[in-house]
Amino acid sequence: MSADNLKQQIEFINELDKLKSVYRQTMVKSENSRQENSAEHSWHIAMMATLLMDYVHKPVDIHRVVTMLLIHDIVEIDAGDAFVFDAEQVAGQEEKEIKAAERLFGLLPDCQRDYIMELWQEFEALETDDARFAKGIDCMQPLLLNMDNNGGSWAKHSISRAQVLKRNQYLETLAPELWEYALSQIDLAVEKGWLKP
Amino acid sequence: MSADNLKQQIEFINELDKLKSVYRQTMVKSENSRQENSAEHSWHIAMMATLLMDYVHKPVDIHRVVTMLLIHDIVEIDAGDAFVFDAEQVAGQEEKEIKAAERLFGLLPDCQRDYIMELWQEFEALETDDARFAKGIDCMQPLLLNMDNNGGSWAKHSISRAQVLKRNQYLETLAPELWEYALSQIDLAVEKGWLKP
Repeated sequence: MSADNLKQQIEFINELDKLKSVYRQTMVKSENSRQENSAEHSWHIAMMATLLMDYVHKPVDIHRVVTMLLIHDIVEIDAGDAFVFDAEQVAGQEEKEIKAAERLFGLLPDCQRDYIMELWQEFEALETDDARFAKGIDCMQPLLLNMDNNGGSWAKHSISRAQVLKRNQYLETLAPELWEYALSQIDLAVEKGWLKP
Repeated sequence: MSADNLKQQIEFINELDKLKSVYRQTMVKSENSRQENSAEHSWHIAMMATLLMDYVHKPVDIHRVVTMLLIHDIVEIDAGDAFVFDAEQVAGQEEKEIKAAERLFGLLPDCQRDYIMELWQEFEALETDDARFAKGIDCMQPLLLNMDNNGGSWAKHSISRAQVLKRNQYLETLAPELWEYALSQIDLAVEKGWLKP
């Protein structure tokens, strides 16, 4: 690695600071239910994947999964966070994120740019078990937070059982115990009136 | 893994949410210089280690390093964050953190508790290259943030060159290019009046 490479990497690392002010719909219970930002969310799901990897019934490379989870939201620095249950916000998001990936990962030295870009594309494509496990964890985290916080963003936005069920499908065959747990929580949320039946 | 194990792991994952409201002295530039929390800090340094590992002149296991960085501040949920340049805050912190580790990691199933506890102890002991690289990155991040933000927490608390130099020593033999960069930035900070000579 050359001094020029280091300069580029440090520019990228400084740019990453901005992910701490991209806010999501999910609430942080420990702090009067403020909105969670995408940097702390990324830490939380990297921890979750590390702790829950033994439930995956197929071989996954946990280091690749954790790296995917650490990088998967960086594009939101430019593209913002789209609430997954808001069709209007989601429309056009893909195009914005591709542009964001090009600008942001493009700050890095070429070989590192290519590595991070390919890993992000793999996460988005959901074609490998590593990517599907990462996505499953990314979707399961708001479920846990909402269940621990009186329905959280589900209750606030009148989300339905079917919407959350669809969102958590990635774990169904990959990690059946986690899927069963998610199902039980979704039913409990309906019972409590936090999700529409 | 049994259903009981999963219940314990989910209790721990819910507890982790609290790290998002443990605030450090370092500032988040992108958001009117609010204080950074330990969850988003942990994400940022896990990214830094991933990006900068090629500068390490000894063999390190990047997955272990990243896991150390993801878990290293969890004890602050109970022990709080002690400002490293405040001797009064630092005194007694070790004892508080050991108690915190016992309670928090103790929420996990036994084998996972032992794994996380040992990794945290390794980080704290600074006797392996994995731990020293992790610590070096943990200390380098506030340097980058302060340099990018008009001296940030250094300027606010009248910190001296010698204090920051001592804090960044972990990289000196392990990653000389990063150490040289840190040195150059510390000198620049003195020149700009952000650090006391």
